Amino acid sequence: MDVAGAIAALRPVLGDRLVLSQAVRAAHGANETWFPEALPDAVAFPGTTAEVSAILAACHAHRCPVTAHGAGSSLEGHHLAVQGGISLDTGRMNRVLAVNAEDLNVVVQPGLTREALNEELRATGLFFPVDPGANASLGGMAATRASGTTAVRYGTMRENVLALEAVMADGRVIRAGSRARKSSTGYDLAHLLVGSEGTLGIITELTLRLQGIPEAVSAATCRFATVEDAVNCVILTIQSGIAMARIEFADQMMVRGFNTLSQAGLPEEPHLFVEFHGSPGGVREQAEAFGEIAAEFGAGGFAWTDRAEDRARLWKMRHDAHYASATLAPGKRTVSTDICVPISRLAEAVTGAQADLARLGLVATIVGHVGDGNFHCAVRFDPDDGAEVARVHAFTDALAEAALALGGTVSGEHGIGLGKIKFMAAEHGEALGIMQAIKAGLDPRNILNPGKLLPGAD
Amino acid sequence: MDVAGAIAALRPVLGDRLVLSQAVRAAHGANETWFPEALPDAVAFPGTTAEVSAILAACHAHRCPVTAHGAGSSLEGHHLAVQGGISLDTGRMNRVLAVNAEDLNVVVQPGLTREALNEELRATGLFFPVDPGANASLGGMAATRASGTTAVRYGTMRENVLALEAVMADGRVIRAGSRARKSSTGYDLAHLLVGSEGTLGIITELTLRLQGIPEAVSAATCRFATVEDAVNCVILTIQSGIAMARIEFADQMMVRGFNTLSQAGLPEEPHLFVEFHGSPGGVREQAEAFGEIAAEFGAGGFAWTDRAEDRARLWKMRHDAHYASATLAPGKRTVSTDICVPISRLAEAVTGAQADLARLGLVATIVGHVGDGNFHCAVRFDPDDGAEVARVHAFTDALAEAALALGGTVSGEHGIGLGKIKFMAAEHGEALGIMQAIKAGLDPRNILNPGKLLPGAD
Repeated sequence: MDVAGAIAALRPVLGDRLVLSQAVRAAHGANETWFPEALPDAVAFPGTTAEVSAILAACHAHRCPVTAHGAGSSLEGHHLAVQGGISLDTGRMNRVLAVNAEDLNVVVQPGLTREALNEELRATGLFFPVDPGANASLGGMAATRASGTTAVRYGTMRENVLALEAVMADGRVIRAGSRARKSSTGYDLAHLLVGSEGTLGIITELTLRLQGIPEAVSAATCRFATVEDAVNCVILTIQSGIAMARIEFADQMMVRGFNTLSQAGLPEEPHLFVEFHGSPGGVREQAEAFGEIAAEFGAGGFAWTDRAEDRARLWKMRHDAHYASATLAPGKRTVSTDICVPISRLAEAVTGAQADLARLGLVATIVGHVGDGNFHCAVRFDPDDGAEVARVHAFTDALAEAALALGGTVSGEHGIGLGKIKFMAAEHGEALGIMQAIKAGLDPRNILNPGKLLPGAD
Repeated sequence: MDVAGAIAALRPVLGDRLVLSQAVRAAHGANETWFPEALPDAVAFPGTTAEVSAILAACHAHRCPVTAHGAGSSLEGHHLAVQGGISLDTGRMNRVLAVNAEDLNVVVQPGLTREALNEELRATGLFFPVDPGANASLGGMAATRASGTTAVRYGTMRENVLALEAVMADGRVIRAGSRARKSSTGYDLAHLLVGSEGTLGIITELTLRLQGIPEAVSAATCRFATVEDAVNCVILTIQSGIAMARIEFADQMMVRGFNTLSQAGLPEEPHLFVEFHGSPGGVREQAEAFGEIAAEFGAGGFAWTDRAEDRARLWKMRHDAHYASATLAPGKRTVSTDICVPISRLAEAVTGAQADLARLGLVATIVGHVGDGNFHCAVRFDPDDGAEVARVHAFTDALAEAALALGGTVSGEHGIGLGKIKFMAAEHGEALGIMQAIKAGLDPRNILNPGKLLPGAD
């Protein structure tokens, strides 16, 4: 590994967009959760695909690690340069390159955030639906196969990336996918790169599917006496084929946090937050069908709204879950973990998590995209309290193991990064060897985000 | 390559399920289109994943080619053992292993056909939506990333395979994906294998998404004065976000074929065949919205039906397009090709194809899943007329090149197989080298379906 050689080679390419200052390196070495700070040796701010290619070619030649950095909102430490080397910040590659409204797609650079994209689309009547809460970069969302509140209706990044351009480990630039809606011409490299967490290539352009803004939108909150009632309502709703645009669960502790942070004034019981998209008649039908199912499970306190500002307030409250959780144990930090299970196993997964949290004496909230069988536990902890940190580890490990035991996956949307590498063998078995073979074939010098995703690749 | 050694090694494993007879080899060397007969040296009929694993381990050891064979309905020769070796027939692995109705999925073996699956699901209120027309095997559909008439609503095999088991080149058995609806845990091997045409592994089990049978279904046919009118109606319909379950185009020649084969009694003009799925109110709204758009483009002759038997007749006619095309030039053979373009370019793609057919003096029909920008040309030809064969080649080459020039793909659903290898470099550029590196990494002895998909891999 010759980091100094790589830096020397890149200086003429990037000039003052190759930054070695302590402040910039520290900003790129921080994370929102519980991983130790990990500073890169330098931060590169490329402006073009050609510059990304030059960076990778130089780092390949000098065996220097390269870790892509988008908005830095990863919850599993994806963007941390744990083996040093170059942090490749995509922030300057943040333009919309083409809005193909007639084909319902848009071409963007990876550093653009999802909120900035939707701002740019405002006049078109179209929107990009994937909504992980954080204002993440679209490149980061693709690299981690992100999803969020609307995946139950519109899919995850997997379903919403039509095509991409990426720079591979040796600097080669490839295009994968096309503007056509489907294709049967060879290996699906676009969707091999989606979710590869920057370990196979660095995405430099994305073609994303867009949706028409629905004619009618209606949202509601309602409460349930028990977690089982709320979750069983979700299960039956999904099984009934009701086209939910969003169906989010919040447990008692999460509701307490919403009340504290957002003065939500909700009873401290398990809640569902739902949204319907469609024609006025379709939305009415869906809402009625949901209401009938919810009534079977004793739902009460229904608050419906069709007004955009009320819905904005509702989803802002939901997206602020991280900060709402913080109010429950001020002065501590949060680790947010996620699992995803077959929807039939969701109730036992959620109640099992609550029981584990109680047993371990941890303060935590549960909130999630339950229409997909996906939920999050945000656990508060004091990083200086070794015993508490150990209890949090015991909890997150048990949660991941429960996901596997229930036929699910250790992450529905946060990804592996640093935090869940230890579960890769348990989840994938022999398939892990195939992933490692692909990594070895495409990045033989292991310069792309080394130390992430795959055990033993470094 | 030691085919005899592989056969000798497999005899004790398979007994009389390893067949060397001329008749069985010939049946596995035939195809529905224009590729030369290509007989395997032997046909294996494994019954279990363990037997598939034993076959691949032996063939790996003896460097013997293995080509998977499902229903044999490929239109690009995927199942032909062009380098000899073993044809691995999945026909005995045709069971439904589990119907997980509560999770809306089903676990099947690869040799099960889609019609047999839907027959087995009949009592559940669920169905498997992917409908390529032919009664293909589900393993073959996954391997070729098939789609069909309902992809506009329910997606292709890419969206409908949740998880799979596959045997890799050296006999290793892997599982990819889970029963959860989404995951962010590593490389998406399931969707690398979907569309890999048997060149990376052989699928031995599939977990497929199911849909609830819609409460209401309504279908219609209508005619247009010109191809442009029909296609522009499709474009505006899709852009308007109307939830079409099916939207199929048939050109004048195709309608003539339907009239001859099925006594359809339709005017010989371009037609659309459409279907709506949903609640009674939703279907009514969608149908009305479509009717308004169609009227803008001068649509006439609307024939609506809600009756299951009438719809069955309509879609049987559509699925018999291959035989309907045959009536236009009796005694000849058909080559069926497909492309997929961004929907905004669909009208020029279809009219361009019609102009090329006329210029070359070819008898052909055009029919397609135009909601995806995907259409087929079925060209009749006399295999003994070298000049006509050359004109057909000129047409199919020009069509593929047009697809690329319009920002599309040389195949929306038929795949590459033998027929379109020559376009892989033009479509994928540098990405082709990445595909070849993956192939070399996972099948270093090139025993899996050699001679298909990738140029120069053999």
